[in-house]
Amino acid sequence: MKIYIINGANLNLLGKREPDIYGTDMLDSINNAITEEAAELGLDCEFFQLNHEGDIIEKLHEACENADGVVLNAGAYTHYSYAIRDAIKAIRKPVIEVHLSNVHAREDFRQISVIASVCRGTIAGFGKTSYVLALHALKDIL
Amino acid sequence: MKIYIINGANLNLLGKREPDIYGTDMLDSINNAITEEAAELGLDCEFFQLNHEGDIIEKLHEACENADGVVLNAGAYTHYSYAIRDAIKAIRKPVIEVHLSNVHAREDFRQISVIASVCRGTIAGFGKTSYVLALHALKDIL
Amino acid sequence: MKIYIINGANLNLLGKREPDIYGTDMLDSINNAITEEAAELGLDCEFFQLNHEGDIIEKLHEACENADGVVLNAGAYTHYSYAIRDAIKAIRKPVIEVHLSNVHAREDFRQISVIASVCRGTIAGFGKTSYVLALHALKDIL
Amino acid sequence: MKIYIINGANLNLLGKREPDIYGTDMLDSINNAITEEAAELGLDCEFFQLNHEGDIIEKLHEACENADGVVLNAGAYTHYSYAIRDAIKAIRKPVIEVHLSNVHAREDFRQISVIASVCRGTIAGFGKTSYVLALHALKDIL
Amino acid sequence: MKIYIINGANLNLLGKREPDIYGTDMLDSINNAITEEAAELGLDCEFFQLNHEGDIIEKLHEACENADGVVLNAGAYTHYSYAIRDAIKAIRKPVIEVHLSNVHAREDFRQISVIASVCRGTIAGFGKTSYVLALHALKDIL
Amino acid sequence: MKIYIINGANLNLLGKREPDIYGTDMLDSINNAITEEAAELGLDCEFFQLNHEGDIIEKLHEACENADGVVLNAGAYTHYSYAIRDAIKAIRKPVIEVHLSNVHAREDFRQISVIASVCRGTIAGFGKTSYVLALHALKDIL
Amino acid sequence: MKIYIINGANLNLLGKREPDIYGTDMLDSINNAITEEAAELGLDCEFFQLNHEGDIIEKLHEACENADGVVLNAGAYTHYSYAIRDAIKAIRKPVIEVHLSNVHAREDFRQISVIASVCRGTIAGFGKTSYVLALHALKDIL
Amino acid sequence: MKIYIINGANLNLLGKREPDIYGTDMLDSINNAITEEAAELGLDCEFFQLNHEGDIIEKLHEACENADGVVLNAGAYTHYSYAIRDAIKAIRKPVIEVHLSNVHAREDFRQISVIASVCRGTIAGFGKTSYVLALHALKDIL
Amino acid sequence: MKIYIINGANLNLLGKREPDIYGTDMLDSINNAITEEAAELGLDCEFFQLNHEGDIIEKLHEACENADGVVLNAGAYTHYSYAIRDAIKAIRKPVIEVHLSNVHAREDFRQISVIASVCRGTIAGFGKTSYVLALHALKDIL
Amino acid sequence: MKIYIINGANLNLLGKREPDIYGTDMLDSINNAITEEAAELGLDCEFFQLNHEGDIIEKLHEACENADGVVLNAGAYTHYSYAIRDAIKAIRKPVIEVHLSNVHAREDFRQISVIASVCRGTIAGFGKTSYVLALHALKDIL
Amino acid sequence: MKIYIINGANLNLLGKREPDIYGTDMLDSINNAITEEAAELGLDCEFFQLNHEGDIIEKLHEACENADGVVLNAGAYTHYSYAIRDAIKAIRKPVIEVHLSNVHAREDFRQISVIASVCRGTIAGFGKTSYVLALHALKDIL
Amino acid sequence: MKIYIINGANLNLLGKREPDIYGTDMLDSINNAITEEAAELGLDCEFFQLNHEGDIIEKLHEACENADGVVLNAGAYTHYSYAIRDAIKAIRKPVIEVHLSNVHAREDFRQISVIASVCRGTIAGFGKTSYVLALHALKDIL
Repeated sequence: MKIYIINGANLNLLGKREPDIYGTDMLDSINNAITEEAAELGLDCEFFQLNHEGDIIEKLHEACENADGVVLNAGAYTHYSYAIRDAIKAIRKPVIEVHLSNVHAREDFRQISVIASVCRGTIAGFGKTSYVLALHALKDIL
Repeated sequence: MKIYIINGANLNLLGKREPDIYGTDMLDSINNAITEEAAELGLDCEFFQLNHEGDIIEKLHEACENADGVVLNAGAYTHYSYAIRDAIKAIRKPVIEVHLSNVHAREDFRQISVIASVCRGTIAGFGKTSYVLALHALKDIL
Repeated sequence: MKIYIINGANLNLLGKREPDIYGTDMLDSINNAITEEAAELGLDCEFFQLNHEGDIIEKLHEACENADGVVLNAGAYTHYSYAIRDAIKAIRKPVIEVHLSNVHAREDFRQISVIASVCRGTIAGFGKTSYVLALHALKDIL
Repeated sequence: MKIYIINGANLNLLGKREPDIYGTDMLDSINNAITEEAAELGLDCEFFQLNHEGDIIEKLHEACENADGVVLNAGAYTHYSYAIRDAIKAIRKPVIEVHLSNVHAREDFRQISVIASVCRGTIAGFGKTSYVLALHALKDIL
Repeated sequence: MKIYIINGANLNLLGKREPDIYGTDMLDSINNAITEEAAELGLDCEFFQLNHEGDIIEKLHEACENADGVVLNAGAYTHYSYAIRDAIKAIRKPVIEVHLSNVHAREDFRQISVIASVCRGTIAGFGKTSYVLALHALKDIL
Repeated sequence: MKIYIINGANLNLLGKREPDIYGTDMLDSINNAITEEAAELGLDCEFFQLNHEGDIIEKLHEACENADGVVLNAGAYTHYSYAIRDAIKAIRKPVIEVHLSNVHAREDFRQISVIASVCRGTIAGFGKTSYVLALHALKDIL
Repeated sequence: MKIYIINGANLNLLGKREPDIYGTDMLDSINNAITEEAAELGLDCEFFQLNHEGDIIEKLHEACENADGVVLNAGAYTHYSYAIRDAIKAIRKPVIEVHLSNVHAREDFRQISVIASVCRGTIAGFGKTSYVLALHALKDIL
Repeated sequence: MKIYIINGANLNLLGKREPDIYGTDMLDSINNAITEEAAELGLDCEFFQLNHEGDIIEKLHEACENADGVVLNAGAYTHYSYAIRDAIKAIRKPVIEVHLSNVHAREDFRQISVIASVCRGTIAGFGKTSYVLALHALKDIL
Repeated sequence: MKIYIINGANLNLLGKREPDIYGTDMLDSINNAITEEAAELGLDCEFFQLNHEGDIIEKLHEACENADGVVLNAGAYTHYSYAIRDAIKAIRKPVIEVHLSNVHAREDFRQISVIASVCRGTIAGFGKTSYVLALHALKDIL
Repeated sequence: MKIYIINGANLNLLGKREPDIYGTDMLDSINNAITEEAAELGLDCEFFQLNHEGDIIEKLHEACENADGVVLNAGAYTHYSYAIRDAIKAIRKPVIEVHLSNVHAREDFRQISVIASVCRGTIAGFGKTSYVLALHALKDIL
Repeated sequence: MKIYIINGANLNLLGKREPDIYGTDMLDSINNAITEEAAELGLDCEFFQLNHEGDIIEKLHEACENADGVVLNAGAYTHYSYAIRDAIKAIRKPVIEVHLSNVHAREDFRQISVIASVCRGTIAGFGKTSYVLALHALKDIL
Repeated sequence: MKIYIINGANLNLLGKREPDIYGTDMLDSINNAITEEAAELGLDCEFFQLNHEGDIIEKLHEACENADGVVLNAGAYTHYSYAIRDAIKAIRKPVIEVHLSNVHAREDFRQISVIASVCRGTIAGFGKTSYVLALHALKDIL
């Protein structure tokens, strides 16, 4: 089964950006860890890091054709992109919202997710393990 | 007279996406219907479907040079894109805001249009007829 | 097909009231223009201008028996009359909300329509053309 | 010069209704006092007590034709009738908002006047003297 | 003892309007049931259905002279008519607020009653039984 | 038919607590009056006064097994206990919300009932008669 | 009878400051006009223009000893000075709140008066006549 | 390693309560599934279902002494129990917030978690799998 | 004179819980210090630490019979327990609200005390001295 | 040790101003009582009553040089003077906020203290004893 | 050209007050640096540090007569002094709002400037350089 | 030292767009003026005008590698792009927020900058001089 792992704005900076919040792992090493765990679960992951809101929307449209499920860390777009929300709702594939950090322990604006209500579920606060847990959840749903 | 018909994020999915809300017509067949009606009104329509906010902004800039009026369904960007709002205000060509569905009968966030106050007028709730009515309105204005 | 055109509070002053916002046409001349257009569409319009909220409610009840559709410009009642809203919802005939001016470009209180969510659709900002477009929309619906 | 003195909902109960707030004078005796003072000022007052919002609107329209100014105590309509507000704005005659009691010392909902911004001025808290002062103000304006 | 049963806007449509919410009983059959129960309680009911806010206000004034108590279903006016509120407060007769449906399980705007604080009590959610219970309450109070 | 009468926090103090608001009847004498009325209606009442939120939740669970309906005066828990709300919704037995006083004429925080939307209906403001009316309502529903 | 006329912050600039709003009369000429009118009413006015909040407070304290009433235009302090509010409440002499302009037709912050509820009444929108009317009101009260 | 699995108010009704939201599994069968998964992870789970807020607080205190981590589904207490929040913060053991349903797709009040900011992370929307994922997360943390 | 010292949720953890905020004294040693000071003041203190909201309510009821005054640190219940508020108001004994920390320098939710308005007074921010000062205050009141 | 006792706006009126709220003691007699208690505690008090916000700010600056602690009743400035707040924060001497009355049982605007978060602690509701308790608190801190 | 440099409340404490936010430079040394830079720009600066709101107002009035422009750091008055705002608007000389620190990165109340909309522009966050940049801006404007 | 000058959405229209607000200079002529001033300051500026939010984000990432500081006029993205905010915070290079117009004197939505708190400082209202001042500020910081 094919899973799209979509990382949104600024996640290419992982490892360099605010390491006290996001940890010191680079995005590549996180992706490698996910790939390994996915292999054990019999899932085939494809990775995307996209800084443009429009690219995330189009990647979700593509997932509708090519993937069985999506793990989505939309970054800051989580908090205001109703366009991404509409894309998630439109494609009718299971999408899991993940966050590396515990967004509820941070700034006020991060308390609002405009996409959570159209995702299947949410996992936040466990660093790269958030992605791995999302794979388990998708495995369970599919 | 040249009219730009600009459709925003996720409107490429028309016909597939939530058909109970948006109907079963594909975007192409809607555009064909609009083209026919436009011909009767002596208007020449050009069609754009753009998922990127920045592309909508630049298409509006282009309309400032090449078109006499714009019919704009900005999709979810309607509800938060002050950048598109600024583009509409800047170009000083008549822009009509349209929506397929009656946005006021849906989620709370769809009650707010940040672009309505700088458009010439708004038409919502009539499916593809919303676009046709907008052409009539533009014909009347121009 | 019979259409009720209902104009609410203060619309009898059209042509005299704030002409920079509402234009210089008197209500009668607007109604004449609508009648002409209606004839072409094969619609039979009856016109009412009512300053009492209760009269608008009862005219909507009457429309339930006598008309196929309603074009409603509720004037300022648009912004707070939940009683008119209940009447629209109760009669189950298509009601189109229209406004002469672009209400979204005016005072804050005009941003709220308590009736929009129970109307079939909304048309605002095109002067008397707003009514004509509403007839086209009703023609399409019926 | 002709002045319309318009009293809104429930003001026919004056003298009987909550005398600790509104005093014990009946509306007629208040009107008599106003008439006397008006005579001294060379003003000719006509008195109306109207419980229907629509009647107040139409009386304001009539004032546009027949009167030089209006003293308006809209009663509770003060706090939500945007339709009366629109009538005041439309008629372009000076309208003075008056209240018997100090509305600011009472319930929260009485803190909001939706008509104040389109009246020429406001006088509140002086019992029947509020009306007399409004006559002086109109005399000064006209 | 004389009791006024006052039904506000749109309640003449009972039985036809949204029967899943308001039930299928016509207003007349409800009134008949109330009359029967009233007879057993030794109460004499008079029935009014009024779509005009001003008529409700004046009926309440009349009740002050002619009735011992009032059962009031103000319909949508419940949610914004401070003028009716003032009338209730002014007449100093016991007024019971009733609703057919459980207003708290419906739209947001129905959560606010601007008249509740000046009524003796509130009964909501029991269909026509709401009125019958109100009679029992009035019987108990008087 | 078995009815649970559940009184929440501080209602054991009835008769002693703020008698101007809650009256001078002790809870026992109120319960006796209810029992008498219930007998006439053919209802069998069981009485509980519980100061612990958790006890009210568990008594509602028990009612799901043992009772045909519930009369619930949750006291101050009415205004914030989403846990009691969830219990009411879960048990799918008719629950009537009652209050001795007219909560809408008191502090702001008492204007909000977080349980009203999941109860069958609400009765407030009639002292011990509130409970008696609730029995009538339940009799009518069952 | 002695009346204190207290003008708050920036009112020394009258005649120079935003003449489209405040008119072209200098404060002195306004005071002269008031003095004349006061003489006719048998009132003895003393004038103060104070830019310091603390000075207004202390002048109000002094009025408690030396004056029979106060006409107060607190300027912008009107909108946030709870300290002046406390002074007005403490002195228990009649204080009339006046404004030259119709504050309700201006910025949002001017809609709030934190002193209105402890004044005897309010007069706004009549230029220098506002003060004259306040003298009449005080004459009537004293 | 010892893990406490704490379920809050109303979760004893699982399988019976609103099965369209919470599924048809009884709490016991969910606990059995968790126990099996825990065994594979080398974790030793102890299960508690507590309807009293105070019992949850004291169980968290006990966890501070006896357990290495906590999986907490506080039920409706999630949305207002600052006392449970304080307990979580005080004990300094990793606590994972879980929910069976996607709380963000439900009522407004469920959008607020007052405990999320003091938990290590949150997992919501995956039915009983939410608990299993939480065990994986704890395994990873410990 | 008998004084009840009631400590609410989580205060049994004192000395272990967030010592930078609450200090390092255990609850017992604080109670000992209070006992000593009370002896000097001729007061007889009884100490309770209660994690259940319902227990605090019932202890306040008991205080109504057995004590002359209460010192209450309700912990986090301070911020939402309207049930405790009702208990304090009902018992009509002087209750002093105390807090160890300066709650106003902490999280937003701690800025709201729903019990303060029914307590005699509030003392916050002085560690164990807060309790001692409350004894002095009670001594002064009684 | 030197303590500044600073009383803000309108506190010179103590004894005359709203005695039902503030008591009948004059400020001087309160100060005498404080001086006596201070002597027992070995504290040397200096008293200031200042109606100007700027004077309070400068007295706090002076306290930074000359005093060991401050007891501050800022009067109504408590509720909006961010300038006083900044002065308290800047001087880094312990400042205790006191109020004669229980501010939480009064008007809405008195619920907000903009200085509380930068004071060491707060004492409110005990009349002149509030000041005496503040001395005890300072004695304990210093 | 003459420039007034006005520093508001607490800015006399610069260098001593919260040096991590405001830096360690004393106000005098900042003023010296400004004087030097001004000389190069051909500007003549006069410096004022005023803790009284009323003094700032009167200094702005004086600037209207004596200066060509104003650099204003109103300190905490920035956030609530509508009286200073009115003074700025009245004098019709260019006023530049400056702040030493980046106010947007600090407490919530510092996010609101009630004077910004009537100043020519705003410069914040550059320490003493903020003043120097303001001189450049004034040079450019004049 | 290399400085990136990034202009956001719609700034390519400068000179044509709303010249009463933004002036008549084209972006190129503004950039030339900045280049000249930069040369005097020994700074090397590179200019970017980007209508896509994602392009601004990526240009900020690039600045992290290639530039010493950034002058950013994000246009309307200023008011809602938390993604740009995250980029600014992540790159840890000094970023200065600039605006041509005084945003505080314009629409409500322009009062909110979601990026200000992570920039070093803000300069607004001086037309092209805003950019020049930002260069001075960067020169001072670097």
